[in-house]
Amino acid sequence: MKRYERHADAIAQLIHSGALRPGDRVPSVREASRTRGISPSTVFEAYYLLEAQGLIHARPRSGYYVSTRLPATAEARPAEPLPSQPAPTSTGVAISDLVFEVLGLARDRDLVPLGSAFPGVELFPLERLARCLASGMRKLDPWSIVQSLPPGDERLRQQIALRYGLHGSAVDVDEIVITNGAMEALNLCLEAVTQPGDIVVVESPTFYAALQALERLNLQALEIATHPRDGIDLVALADALERQSSRAPQQRIKACWLMPSFQNPLGSLMPEGKKRELVALLARHQVPLIEDDVYGELHFAPQRPPPAKAFDDEGLVMHCSSFSKSLAPGYRVGWVAAGRFATAVQRLKLMTTLSAATPSQQALSEYLAQGGYDRHLRALRRSLEQQQAIALAAVARHFPPGTRVSRPEGGYFLWVELPQKVDALALHRQALARGISLAPGQIFSADQRFANCVRINYGHPAQARFEAALETVGALACALAGSSHPS
Amino acid sequence: MKRYERHADAIAQLIHSGALRPGDRVPSVREASRTRGISPSTVFEAYYLLEAQGLIHARPRSGYYVSTRLPATAEARPAEPLPSQPAPTSTGVAISDLVFEVLGLARDRDLVPLGSAFPGVELFPLERLARCLASGMRKLDPWSIVQSLPPGDERLRQQIALRYGLHGSAVDVDEIVITNGAMEALNLCLEAVTQPGDIVVVESPTFYAALQALERLNLQALEIATHPRDGIDLVALADALERQSSRAPQQRIKACWLMPSFQNPLGSLMPEGKKRELVALLARHQVPLIEDDVYGELHFAPQRPPPAKAFDDEGLVMHCSSFSKSLAPGYRVGWVAAGRFATAVQRLKLMTTLSAATPSQQALSEYLAQGGYDRHLRALRRSLEQQQAIALAAVARHFPPGTRVSRPEGGYFLWVELPQKVDALALHRQALARGISLAPGQIFSADQRFANCVRINYGHPAQARFEAALETVGALACALAGSSHPS
Repeated sequence: MKRYERHADAIAQLIHSGALRPGDRVPSVREASRTRGISPSTVFEAYYLLEAQGLIHARPRSGYYVSTRLPATAEARPAEPLPSQPAPTSTGVAISDLVFEVLGLARDRDLVPLGSAFPGVELFPLERLARCLASGMRKLDPWSIVQSLPPGDERLRQQIALRYGLHGSAVDVDEIVITNGAMEALNLCLEAVTQPGDIVVVESPTFYAALQALERLNLQALEIATHPRDGIDLVALADALERQSSRAPQQRIKACWLMPSFQNPLGSLMPEGKKRELVALLARHQVPLIEDDVYGELHFAPQRPPPAKAFDDEGLVMHCSSFSKSLAPGYRVGWVAAGRFATAVQRLKLMTTLSAATPSQQALSEYLAQGGYDRHLRALRRSLEQQQAIALAAVARHFPPGTRVSRPEGGYFLWVELPQKVDALALHRQALARGISLAPGQIFSADQRFANCVRINYGHPAQARFEAALETVGALACALAGSSHPS
Repeated sequence: MKRYERHADAIAQLIHSGALRPGDRVPSVREASRTRGISPSTVFEAYYLLEAQGLIHARPRSGYYVSTRLPATAEARPAEPLPSQPAPTSTGVAISDLVFEVLGLARDRDLVPLGSAFPGVELFPLERLARCLASGMRKLDPWSIVQSLPPGDERLRQQIALRYGLHGSAVDVDEIVITNGAMEALNLCLEAVTQPGDIVVVESPTFYAALQALERLNLQALEIATHPRDGIDLVALADALERQSSRAPQQRIKACWLMPSFQNPLGSLMPEGKKRELVALLARHQVPLIEDDVYGELHFAPQRPPPAKAFDDEGLVMHCSSFSKSLAPGYRVGWVAAGRFATAVQRLKLMTTLSAATPSQQALSEYLAQGGYDRHLRALRRSLEQQQAIALAAVARHFPPGTRVSRPEGGYFLWVELPQKVDALALHRQALARGISLAPGQIFSADQRFANCVRINYGHPAQARFEAALETVGALACALAGSSHPS
C-alpha cells in the first residue's frame, strides 16, 4: 500500500464506522498534512482516490465532504422494499379512527418525532417570514383585505405561475386557486370531480390523508401496485382503467389521487417518461389526475423533477402544492393549478372556507418578491439529504436482518419494511413508551396491509437524539422479530 | 310659541329635512346662543324639549347629538316586512349558480357596495392588527408553528372562552375548535351531523351560503317562516318537528342552521325567552342547532344578546362565530363551540384544512391580550347604528310607496321589501350599470321567492356616496314599480 492509499484507507474506515458521517467535512489538506506528518500532495492524492470511489466530494472554496449518497460497497445497505401487491378490487374506506388514534398519541412535543409529517421547524426562515408578515400587510391596500376572495391574491398567484414557468411547465395564472395548504386543495379537487360511491385510484401504500378524504366523501379506494423507486405500476393502472371502461358509468374510475414525486410514504419518484405516459393514459380515458406535489421542491438531484402537470395538454391534471413543507409551515398557504376544473374548485373554496388568510398570503408574496427562496431551498435540501444518509446508515446498523428500506431522491421520509413477524402497531406502542413516535404501516392502506412497515421522518436535525432514537427502534424491532441485534 | 319652542322647532325641521342627520352633532349651546342671539338657558330648554321628544340625546362631556333611533313621528317610516311564508315541504337546493353569478358581478371595487357581505375596512383597527402579527409571531415558540393543529391555539381558545364567560354563557375551552372563519365552522358542523339526502331547517329568507352548503352536501332545505323582528316562527318549527317525528328516521330533520341574533338578511333578533324556547324544543327532539352568530357583537342595545348556546345544557348547540365581521376581516379566524360534536368537528377540520393559519391566530391572541377590543367594538357599533339611521331615512325618502323595510337592532343589513312589480334581479342589473351593487332577494331562498326584495349593506361609511347610491336605487325601483318618486 502506498502512503496516499494508506491515508485514503484510514479516512474510508472513519466513514464506514460512522465516525465521519455523510455531509461531514473531511479534515482540510493542511490539517491532515500537519497531523499525519504527510505532504499536502499525498493528502490530495488520497482525497482524489476517495472522490473517485464516491466516498467524498469537493465543494468549491470550502473543502472536501463525506458524500451523502455513499456507494453500495461503502455500507451494508439494506435492500429496497418490494413493489406492493394491493387487493385487486375497490373498497370502502374506514381508516380514520385508526389514523386519529395514531396521530393523537404522537402529538406530545417531547417525543422524538420519527412519526411526524413535518420537517423540523429549525429548517425554515421563520424570523424573516415574521418580518414579511408585517411589511406585507403594511404595503397592502386595505380594500384587498376584505376582497381577496378566491382565487386568492393576484401577486402571489403570479409568483407561483412564474415558478412553474422557471421549471418548464406552463401554468396560467387564472387556473391557480390559493388554498389553506395543499390539504384543502386536494380535498376540494376530489370533491369537484366525484360523487359519493365513486371509485378513486390511489397508490399502494398511500398517504393516510388521501384515504381519510375518500372516507369522508364516501368514495371507493382502488389501490394500485406501486414501486418504491419509480412509483405507480402503469400496466396495473392501464389494466384497471380498461376493466372499468366496460362497466356502467357509475362504476368507473372517476379520478386518480397520486404523488408522482417523492411519494408519501414510499419516497418513490416517477421518471419523466413515466409521468408523460401516465398523463397520456389518463387522457385516453378522460380521468382527472389529482397530483399531490408537496415534496417536489425537496429534490436532492440538481433539477426539480417536473410534475405530471407539465405534460398535460388537456387541463385534466390538478396540480396541488403548498409552502408548508418547503418554506412556511403553519402559514397554511397552498394552491392548486386546477386546469379545466379551476372554476369548480374556486367555487367550492368560496363555499367552504371563503379564502386563505390574507396575512399569510401577503407574507409569502412579500418573501418571494424579496428573493432568497431558492437559496433557502438549497440549504434545506442539503440538510435533508445529509439526514437521510445518517438515517439509512442507522437503519443498516441497528435494524433486524431482513429489513428493507427505500432510498428516496428527495423529501424526508424513509419507508422501512421490517421482517414479517414485526407488527408495526406494537412497535409504535413500544416506541411511544420510550419517547419516540412512528408512523405505522397500517395507516397507509384501506385494508391495513402494511402491518410490518413503518414510515420514518428524518427531517428533524437533532442528530444525536435522532440516531439514538433509531437505535432504540431498531432494538425494539429486533426483539419483535425474534432476531438478534445486527451490530 | 315660546322662544325655546321656536328654537326647538327649527332644529327639529333640520332633522326632518335631513340637514342634520342621525349621529350628527347639534350646535353647542354656546354656538347656538351666539348665532341665534338667544340666551344659553333658552338653548338648554330647547334641547331638553328635543331630548324629551327623542330627537336628540346628550353624550357626557361631548354635547348633543341627533338620535340614531328617531321616534316614529319624526319620519315617514316605512312599515316592516311581513313574516315570510315559505313552501311547506323540504326541497333540494340548486341556487349556487345564481349566487355566484350575482356575487361575481359585484366584485368590482369601484362599485358602491350595497350588495357586499362585509362592512367597510375603515371600521377596523388594521394597523394595530398588523403590528400584532409581527409581535405575536416573535413571541411564539417555533415548535407550535408546526404543531398548532386542531383544535387551535390554546391561548386564543382561552380568550374566546373568557368572552363567552363575560357574556354569561359557560363554554368549555375543550369544545372550541378554531376554524378558517365562521364559514368553515358552519360547513364542518353541517357535515358532522348530516348525510346526503337529510333534511335541514333554515330560516326564510336565509343566508345564501347556508343554501350553498346544503346544495354542496346534497341536503334538503326545509324553510320555516321567519319574522323580520323576532326571528323564526317557533310554532311552525314545532309543527315541522312533530310532523317529521312520525316519519322514517332518514326523513326526519337532522339539524337546524339558524341565526338567532341579527339574522342575515332580515336582521331579526330572537328575544331571550324565544331563544330559550328554541333550545328546549330542539332538545325535546334531539335535533342539533348550528347557530350562526357572526353578528352577535354588533348590537346597538347596551348588552350583547345571549346566543342560543347560553341556554343549552345538552351540548346540542354548535355555536359558530368569527372575528371577520367584528375585528379582523381577511384574517380568516373563526371558531365553533361545538358541544358534544367537538371531536367530530375537530377531526373533519384536520382532514380538510388541517388548521387555521398560525400568524392569524397569533395576531388575534396578541390583540385580545393587549386589551382594547371592547373599545373598538363600541366605536364600530356606534358607526353602524348611525349608518343604519341614515339608510332608513334614505329609503323612506327615495324608495317607492309601499316599500317595507326591516329595522334591525344590530348588524349592517337592511331587508327591503319592494312593491310586488319590482324584480330584484332586474333592479340589481340596472343598479350595477350605475355603479352600485345589491344583493337581490332571489339568492336568499331555495325557490327564489323573495323576488321583490333586496338586502342593503349600510356598513360602508362613505356617506355622500352611500346616500346618492340609495337615491339612485330608489329611483330605479320607482321606475320598475311604475310609481312616481315619493320625494
